[in-house]
Amino acid sequence: MYLEKISEPKDINKLSNDELKVLASEIRDALMNRLSKHGGHFGPNFGMVETIIALHYVFNSPVDKIVYDVSHQSYPHKMLTGRKDAYLYEEHFEDVSGYTNSEESEHDFFNVGHTSTSISLASGLVKARDLKGDKENIIAVIGDGSLSGGEALEGLNFASELQSNFIIIVNDNDMSIAENHGGLYKNLKELRDSKGTCPCNLFKAMNLDYIYVEDGNDLETLIHTFYDIKDIDHPIVVHINTQKGKGYQIAEENKENWHWCMPFDVETGKPKVTFEGEDYGNLTADYLLDKMKKDSKVVTLVAGVPTNIGFTKDKRERAGKQFVDVGIAEEHAIAMASGIAKNGGKPVFATHSSFIQRTYDQLSQDLCVNNNPATILVNTASVYGMNDVTHLGLYDIAMMSNIPNLVYLAPTSKEEYFAMLDWSIEQDKYPVAIRIPCNGVISDNRKVQNDYSNLNKYKIEKQGSKVAIVALGDFYQLGEQIVSEIKEKLGFVPTLINPRYITGLDKNLLEELKKEHEIVITLEDGILEGGFGEKIASFYGTTNMKVKNYGIKKSFPDRYVVDELLKENGITIDKIIEDIKEIIDIK
Amino acid sequence: MYLEKISEPKDINKLSNDELKVLASEIRDALMNRLSKHGGHFGPNFGMVETIIALHYVFNSPVDKIVYDVSHQSYPHKMLTGRKDAYLYEEHFEDVSGYTNSEESEHDFFNVGHTSTSISLASGLVKARDLKGDKENIIAVIGDGSLSGGEALEGLNFASELQSNFIIIVNDNDMSIAENHGGLYKNLKELRDSKGTCPCNLFKAMNLDYIYVEDGNDLETLIHTFYDIKDIDHPIVVHINTQKGKGYQIAEENKENWHWCMPFDVETGKPKVTFEGEDYGNLTADYLLDKMKKDSKVVTLVAGVPTNIGFTKDKRERAGKQFVDVGIAEEHAIAMASGIAKNGGKPVFATHSSFIQRTYDQLSQDLCVNNNPATILVNTASVYGMNDVTHLGLYDIAMMSNIPNLVYLAPTSKEEYFAMLDWSIEQDKYPVAIRIPCNGVISDNRKVQNDYSNLNKYKIEKQGSKVAIVALGDFYQLGEQIVSEIKEKLGFVPTLINPRYITGLDKNLLEELKKEHEIVITLEDGILEGGFGEKIASFYGTTNMKVKNYGIKKSFPDRYVVDELLKENGITIDKIIEDIKEIIDIK
Repeated sequence: MYLEKISEPKDINKLSNDELKVLASEIRDALMNRLSKHGGHFGPNFGMVETIIALHYVFNSPVDKIVYDVSHQSYPHKMLTGRKDAYLYEEHFEDVSGYTNSEESEHDFFNVGHTSTSISLASGLVKARDLKGDKENIIAVIGDGSLSGGEALEGLNFASELQSNFIIIVNDNDMSIAENHGGLYKNLKELRDSKGTCPCNLFKAMNLDYIYVEDGNDLETLIHTFYDIKDIDHPIVVHINTQKGKGYQIAEENKENWHWCMPFDVETGKPKVTFEGEDYGNLTADYLLDKMKKDSKVVTLVAGVPTNIGFTKDKRERAGKQFVDVGIAEEHAIAMASGIAKNGGKPVFATHSSFIQRTYDQLSQDLCVNNNPATILVNTASVYGMNDVTHLGLYDIAMMSNIPNLVYLAPTSKEEYFAMLDWSIEQDKYPVAIRIPCNGVISDNRKVQNDYSNLNKYKIEKQGSKVAIVALGDFYQLGEQIVSEIKEKLGFVPTLINPRYITGLDKNLLEELKKEHEIVITLEDGILEGGFGEKIASFYGTTNMKVKNYGIKKSFPDRYVVDELLKENGITIDKIIEDIKEIIDIK
Repeated sequence: MYLEKISEPKDINKLSNDELKVLASEIRDALMNRLSKHGGHFGPNFGMVETIIALHYVFNSPVDKIVYDVSHQSYPHKMLTGRKDAYLYEEHFEDVSGYTNSEESEHDFFNVGHTSTSISLASGLVKARDLKGDKENIIAVIGDGSLSGGEALEGLNFASELQSNFIIIVNDNDMSIAENHGGLYKNLKELRDSKGTCPCNLFKAMNLDYIYVEDGNDLETLIHTFYDIKDIDHPIVVHINTQKGKGYQIAEENKENWHWCMPFDVETGKPKVTFEGEDYGNLTADYLLDKMKKDSKVVTLVAGVPTNIGFTKDKRERAGKQFVDVGIAEEHAIAMASGIAKNGGKPVFATHSSFIQRTYDQLSQDLCVNNNPATILVNTASVYGMNDVTHLGLYDIAMMSNIPNLVYLAPTSKEEYFAMLDWSIEQDKYPVAIRIPCNGVISDNRKVQNDYSNLNKYKIEKQGSKVAIVALGDFYQLGEQIVSEIKEKLGFVPTLINPRYITGLDKNLLEELKKEHEIVITLEDGILEGGFGEKIASFYGTTNMKVKNYGIKKSFPDRYVVDELLKENGITIDKIIEDIKEIIDIK
């Protein structure tokens, strides 16, 4: 096996063209080995095998610097830069992250997991190189799907100003995560259809030099192309037509489902793990489909990740014009939702907590300054969400809840989530965001109300004394457990509060607590800093009430184990009860 | 005067072509009247007089809906929609804001003060119209300068998906606030030079229909053009070539200086108000020019607002390749700064607090996850900054200080600011942001240190007892005043602390305070929620220390008077001392 002998990129230069082709095949086998057992990004990696071999064959990494957008195509790069074992041998799977990672290798320049960043990041490398008078090649790799993102378009527009070596590889597999959306994709098609010769050319309109590679899975062509442009003295776009999922027929035929995969059976492509029971994705899609059927003014928006709320292809088709995928363009999505709400529509936009980060200014200016009644669903916003450092769902409370006018809700059960969602869609006074629960679909017997227009009214779920536990969203169930444990071990019943509203204090209720309570405990599923609990600490700052806030310490944990992270942050039932005993006098 | 008789748009339809030309001239006179006495956005308004008359002549506002980007060109629109008095008569100047404002008029659909939003906002109006089955025209107006912003490019890319009436007016005056930057401006020039006929066309590459209007200050042409496309059944870009500052020779000849103006003498164009003494803009530019001269790796970046740190044209030229204006593209700027730092450069990016809001995700992912040592200067981050609701500098602490890895510094004097800036540029461990002081250039005799690498070490500026005042950044001087007042009126000396670091707690110092203090007061120049003081309240939550946080309540104040806003928020020396007396026992 050639791959086993490659410990750094220059090792591939010893191989003949035919041997390189075998190497490509071995890389696909290694991808298949890891992905079928471990899961990960499938389609983009299979499509980019030849391009990445050719890049490392022609360029001299890490002196020449390659920056991968979103990292969905970086696995072959990892294999050629000393990390092959993580793809060949199961015992080494955990040696690497799913993204480029500068702590893993000197060949990785950034930790990247968000789309649309590579051109801008690489343009910084270019500028620094030029200031230092160095001469290496700087290469940004970006997929067609990522091009619709604002940061990528800003970078593309700026690139021509650099006037020195800068190679932008556009990996065009005619797909985003799902299908592409936006006018530029018509131009990419025209370019593919005309083999790069059509006169109207997005990249040239950005004042960039341009070449087209028709068969982006042909190694020799790619190697020749890269030799031609190596050491070029100005920015150039190399538009490469690749096939997503190349080499695995099942993936070639169903590109959307094979963008990313769970462990699967190689013969059939069937996932080895299946989820039983309900999940909020499907539940949300089904609720919205029903809602949209009944009300033609309701419209669901996503930004490139339709299945984050269960909108698989069939459900998108059923929703018709009431479903809008804006492509990877979160900023546009929030502004568009504001506009829809302004003109009497009822928009619901959903994305992951990590991606809503793209939209602070749009939430603030386009939506909340204008106070338009759009609904924003924030998904995987939890310590129980994605655990890669680039995809954490721990920051949305701090980011969003301090934006004026926004009503940010934290449901604690399935019934409460749908009641809040329905209220939000029907009301016309506030921009509302809802944190979709992420600790399983929990259906309990607690009554929920239908109307949330009496803002910042917390709910006492259990009246007790001495200790009040304010348990927000996903940590409500933890609050319930603490209540049981205190009752059992300490012999009294504490008060359990479901605050429901992240964006405001129920001052009357908090005042009232002073009568029978000595300490207020806050529990929140996100970072503490800038979050919910600190506001309660501030509220009680001049009183005798003790307050202890629980949440995750501001940090960027990477690939953490939930229980360990919670323990490190003192969020265990035992620790919390111990803390309470230390702070107040338990008789 | 025709203008005096116009109380709604349909009144202009009674005028003949010649009378409309007189109206245009009257609008310019009214602009001159207001702007020479009051100041405001000059160039874009003078250039767009004819376009806006023609829009209101042809379309039926507010049924047909016009959305203005950034609002820099919206004054003629305001005059034609019932608000002419605010331009004709000094006593009515305060009746209107400087931006479109939905509370002012049904002809304004959004409060807009940030660039690059109109296409996305208007596309929401389009979508809602289509869902409701309505038929009105929806028109987005955007300037060439705004086109480089990510949100605008996302919107432009998405627009073609709408497949129904949507008119995008590109007001091309070949200028941003300063000169344009980016490849697309070469394409706009090609389009202007070829009268819209060159085959490579950015808008067509986004799959949009396109027409060009060569003389964008010719009323008849504009009226005919708009009649031609009224009720069009698909999205179209109308590319209009206008002259920035049209009608005032001094402004035509010096477009950058006349983007925006202070009150001025109409004869000479000289400003009536001149600032004496130092300002942080010039000081920062001069410091950076000197720094760049000594070190070729230092590079200054701005995003469309070069003079926010004093980089006037001559200073930009002196800085040469070490000065980069990325155009309106804040996201790109942060990512590029991260890349520069990664490759050994020393980047300093500066923008306003209100515009840094564009970059939450880039700060988090591109910069801080990667922990690259870039310097970010945050300007007008203060209650003393801009006071329009769309330009407030009150939110950056809440937005930025909760991002892991970022070191956010709050200098309290000129010496401290430059010491921090110099340290930040020279260190290579942390992404650092600095809040440029905004309460005047204050030079005092306090010693400052040169090294800030011992993170989160607060400085006791005055040791006292009972009351500890933690006075952050611009509110440090308020802290000093409170100290004097307490000393004088209550007869004891409180402790005064300059925390310097916004992003962390000095736990040792806070512990130490417990010995001789009963209350900690925090003062911060921004919203309280998610800010600095709440963290201190949380720190002391389980102790007997009382904490009172002072700052601005989360809200969107508009055109406020500083002293009134401070008073409303309880931030006066008298009120604070009164509070202290209520909370603790003063012997």
